[in-house]
Amino acid sequence: MVPKKTLKLIKSLQLKKYRYQEKLFLVEGAKSIAELLISSFKVRTLLGTSVFINQHQSLIERCNSQLEIYQAEESIISSAGSFKNNNAGIAVVEMPASQLAPEEISNYALVLDTIRDPGNLGTIIRVADWYGISLIISSHDTTDEYNPKVISASMGSFLRVPVYRTELVSYLQKVNLPVYGTLVNQGISVHQLGFAKQGLIVLGNESEGISSEVASYVTQAIHIPQFGVAESLNVSVATAIICDNLRRGVMPSGT
Amino acid sequence: MVPKKTLKLIKSLQLKKYRYQEKLFLVEGAKSIAELLISSFKVRTLLGTSVFINQHQSLIERCNSQLEIYQAEESIISSAGSFKNNNAGIAVVEMPASQLAPEEISNYALVLDTIRDPGNLGTIIRVADWYGISLIISSHDTTDEYNPKVISASMGSFLRVPVYRTELVSYLQKVNLPVYGTLVNQGISVHQLGFAKQGLIVLGNESEGISSEVASYVTQAIHIPQFGVAESLNVSVATAIICDNLRRGVMPSGT
Repeated sequence: MVPKKTLKLIKSLQLKKYRYQEKLFLVEGAKSIAELLISSFKVRTLLGTSVFINQHQSLIERCNSQLEIYQAEESIISSAGSFKNNNAGIAVVEMPASQLAPEEISNYALVLDTIRDPGNLGTIIRVADWYGISLIISSHDTTDEYNPKVISASMGSFLRVPVYRTELVSYLQKVNLPVYGTLVNQGISVHQLGFAKQGLIVLGNESEGISSEVASYVTQAIHIPQFGVAESLNVSVATAIICDNLRRGVMPSGT
Repeated sequence: MVPKKTLKLIKSLQLKKYRYQEKLFLVEGAKSIAELLISSFKVRTLLGTSVFINQHQSLIERCNSQLEIYQAEESIISSAGSFKNNNAGIAVVEMPASQLAPEEISNYALVLDTIRDPGNLGTIIRVADWYGISLIISSHDTTDEYNPKVISASMGSFLRVPVYRTELVSYLQKVNLPVYGTLVNQGISVHQLGFAKQGLIVLGNESEGISSEVASYVTQAIHIPQFGVAESLNVSVATAIICDNLRRGVMPSGT
């Protein structure tokens, strides 16, 4: 039996307020939890179906000794968590201690200026992880990276790509690197641009784009060439296209 | 006052069953409706706030004479429709007559093999529209393109990029074109490939990829080079990266 207070805690962690009060967040679904169990994140509680627990017994045993494990029916898991089609498990995980955004960046980082949609943020984290960008700097008003929809859309990549929240203008003032940003009707096509070895790529809000205060720190405006009629691209799609062009000519991983 | 039967019809059109029974679908939100009003789609009913109706008076007047228009409070509109944050309007639109998928393709078409997520389908339609791909062929079990989430994610691009449903295997048998498809650990990198002048690009299901029956018609396997750790990319993101590489070297629109 899963204690009522555990189910209540899980329900509460769907809300940002309680996530930050408890410094805990949820990871849901088989694939994300399996990746979580081999990561350095500290899992506090795990609800799993008997199938899931049996399948991952060796991973669970290697986890920290204080891990509370509860076997639960699928119906309990899907009603406790955020996703109706979760038929595997829910983990309650400790947030890592928040750190200052690093000013020394050896390669590239993404800078997120007020990304509002959790699905977009999760997809951006996954894209960064695919393209070997291990750092995301975000404005304070970007959607919470511990939102269950962000965790789900990142498909485990949240374990590898931390999001540092900071005041972007004062951050950009301190960092001495090329700053690329998509500004409307401006800049060089990403098909033509030679990217520097290090830099920042700024992505703007879904409807407003990059704010004017942040835009004044963009040292190289860029655009994605358009071959049809659509007015714009989704921000996570735009991020992927910019990253793909950034990495052209670099040796892919696994080669 | 909006008649009860109109509100009931709108509610029912959130379900696929009633959309196909009535051959009607919903378009919601200011931007999509504004684009709809200048398209050739036949709008049957329009609910709009007084602000929206006043702003678009001239577009509305140019619409068909049988258009029923109702002015409604924001609260009525957001409770009748699919999206809580819709503060502009809802249109009830006639589905265009379904046509056979064309076998003559002058440029490129996307072929969707069992895309399940409405957000992904909508984003793929928007990406196709950005990259000047005016044709999508889909398997019968791909999510319904008239789902309100698809319409919303396509950001008006559904007006320009039709989706033709067909049985993919017999379709691919008939079409004599290069067929590109992402197959796991196979094929040429999209950074290296020279795409043919015409062709089909097959995109597979979110978790299963391209089915084996469809994969046997892929004439050129391709992959997106990976520079980090994430196992895969979201299918709409992958579509965008493939299209961006396809269009490299082509003259962008508006130049």
